[in-house]
Amino acid sequence: MRATLLYAADDVRVEDVADPKIHNATDAVVRVVLSCICGSDLWPYKSLPPTDNPRHMGHEFLGVVEETGPEVRTLAPGDLVVAPFVYSDNTCAYCREGLQTSCLHGGQWGVNGVDGGQGQAARVPYADGTLVKLPVEEGSDLLPDLLSLSDILCTGYHAARTAGVAQGDSVTVVGDGAVGLAAVISARLLGAEQIILMGRHQARTDLGRDFGATDVVAERGEEGIARVRELTGGQGTRKVLECVGLKDAIVQSFGVVRDGGTISRVGAPQFAEVPFGFGDFMRNITLTGGVAPARAYIEELLPHILDGSIRPGRVFDRTLALEDIADGYRAMNDREALKVLIRP
Amino acid sequence: MRATLLYAADDVRVEDVADPKIHNATDAVVRVVLSCICGSDLWPYKSLPPTDNPRHMGHEFLGVVEETGPEVRTLAPGDLVVAPFVYSDNTCAYCREGLQTSCLHGGQWGVNGVDGGQGQAARVPYADGTLVKLPVEEGSDLLPDLLSLSDILCTGYHAARTAGVAQGDSVTVVGDGAVGLAAVISARLLGAEQIILMGRHQARTDLGRDFGATDVVAERGEEGIARVRELTGGQGTRKVLECVGLKDAIVQSFGVVRDGGTISRVGAPQFAEVPFGFGDFMRNITLTGGVAPARAYIEELLPHILDGSIRPGRVFDRTLALEDIADGYRAMNDREALKVLIRP
Repeated sequence: MRATLLYAADDVRVEDVADPKIHNATDAVVRVVLSCICGSDLWPYKSLPPTDNPRHMGHEFLGVVEETGPEVRTLAPGDLVVAPFVYSDNTCAYCREGLQTSCLHGGQWGVNGVDGGQGQAARVPYADGTLVKLPVEEGSDLLPDLLSLSDILCTGYHAARTAGVAQGDSVTVVGDGAVGLAAVISARLLGAEQIILMGRHQARTDLGRDFGATDVVAERGEEGIARVRELTGGQGTRKVLECVGLKDAIVQSFGVVRDGGTISRVGAPQFAEVPFGFGDFMRNITLTGGVAPARAYIEELLPHILDGSIRPGRVFDRTLALEDIADGYRAMNDREALKVLIRP
Repeated sequence: MRATLLYAADDVRVEDVADPKIHNATDAVVRVVLSCICGSDLWPYKSLPPTDNPRHMGHEFLGVVEETGPEVRTLAPGDLVVAPFVYSDNTCAYCREGLQTSCLHGGQWGVNGVDGGQGQAARVPYADGTLVKLPVEEGSDLLPDLLSLSDILCTGYHAARTAGVAQGDSVTVVGDGAVGLAAVISARLLGAEQIILMGRHQARTDLGRDFGATDVVAERGEEGIARVRELTGGQGTRKVLECVGLKDAIVQSFGVVRDGGTISRVGAPQFAEVPFGFGDFMRNITLTGGVAPARAYIEELLPHILDGSIRPGRVFDRTLALEDIADGYRAMNDREALKVLIRP
């Protein structure tokens, strides 16, 4: 089959790789119908040193089950399924608590002999635990929305849930990327009244307004903090969803959070130390979040997509064939595209 | 009256200062019956540069109301009261949410013309909001226990509450100082099943066992982390209460917390940056806590002291007269005393 390999920064290739096969009795093989490029794929795209062992890319996909191992009980060939961005058995102590990202037997796509998501097919470990069946046809218009369950919608929702966003709440979302926009959708779903979106790309913040943002703040740094405080009677918002992962974004988050408030970060931190000293200790700020256990949220979010009340798939603003995926990486890296769909 | 002044590191003096008087209609004047020295008093005791404007020390006291301003409604001369370690109006938006440390009109003892607690009397701003009446006599044996409501018991309880300690929980308490021991009491009160106390002063950890610690780990650093993991099936505890405030203690806390778990820190951080990067992000660790709004917890904790079910006053292992307070600072700084009671 064809799959996406990264050989070095800025060197994405689509090549022939071995077809996936059942290795373990709990595996399934899934033919990929739709996948996409993640903001986090851009980190290695910008920085990977040249290698002869290319990285198998992609961790967001949905597709059709082609084959199942003898111990797979809940899925059958022909089922349309979505895969969360890590696989997990969904039975261990962590999975039962909804922390599938810490699954004792789980792991990441694209490493240790497991396929990446940006290919024509994938072997899925712990298929019963990992995959969620989708009650639509392969040709459904909802597929881009449903694909967002693989990562970005669940990641934005994890931010909102771990921050404890509740009815009537005030929320700042830091970052207008796909996850930030999903965080807006999620804050709205959970009943937030004021949703301030901090971002400076107007096409994206306009979509954020459509998704439920009540205010947009394009300023950054001290100026951005002052603007959010103006919008909140000087106090800041009770919840801040940090959807970037850079140090400036976390500093901004501390600047706009109300005393006693919570910052949830779902942007993978590209820094080792958080500036969180005596001053913010005196303000009783909580820092929560982390990598999203997408699997924990899929069933909960699915009905909102099926009934059309949320349309997270609107973040996809370009569609490319798998063979052209390198151009998708380039376009996202150049901020020419927000998020790129891939049709194998 | 006589009061405690700090002129420089290691230079504590008891001197004559102006007698407190009613300044504002909401003030009360309280004659101090019992006060004490706090671990946090040791920071300036170790570091204050010499000054001609000495610092008025002390923020934990209980005493008898002597006089009230015309707008004080709930208190009268003769009432025995305890003061939390900051004053607050208890009516603003933050106070109503139980975050009296962020009170819009509140402040600290010993600054801006407000007396410190280590003296013979104190003017108490917002007396109705700040003070809590105690239903015992001035000669009660419970006074040391009740004084702990001023700071350490509520601080330990804040750690346990913000960490979300619940029935059956596993908890590590980092630090065997007075606050750490109060955190043990609090974790026990909230139903924790396993309480691992990390500390290496045996007299203190023995008291910790009396208070409810199920295990004591005297090792520190990597060795201490390994020991806690041994005691928890390799996983760490769900909650960690960090009661020290030094960077080593927070590093240790991240080392012993279970994936998906919460660290609550109530030791005032003596460092600006928290090592909380990608690895702990992937484990979904929450960092919460902060300065304790003691006022929020006093009514809730008071009955447990009155019925004798908790005896936090046992942390006081030395009693001195006010005139001898300098020796109390020395003894606590030398770790010769755990916590020193002061009788004016």
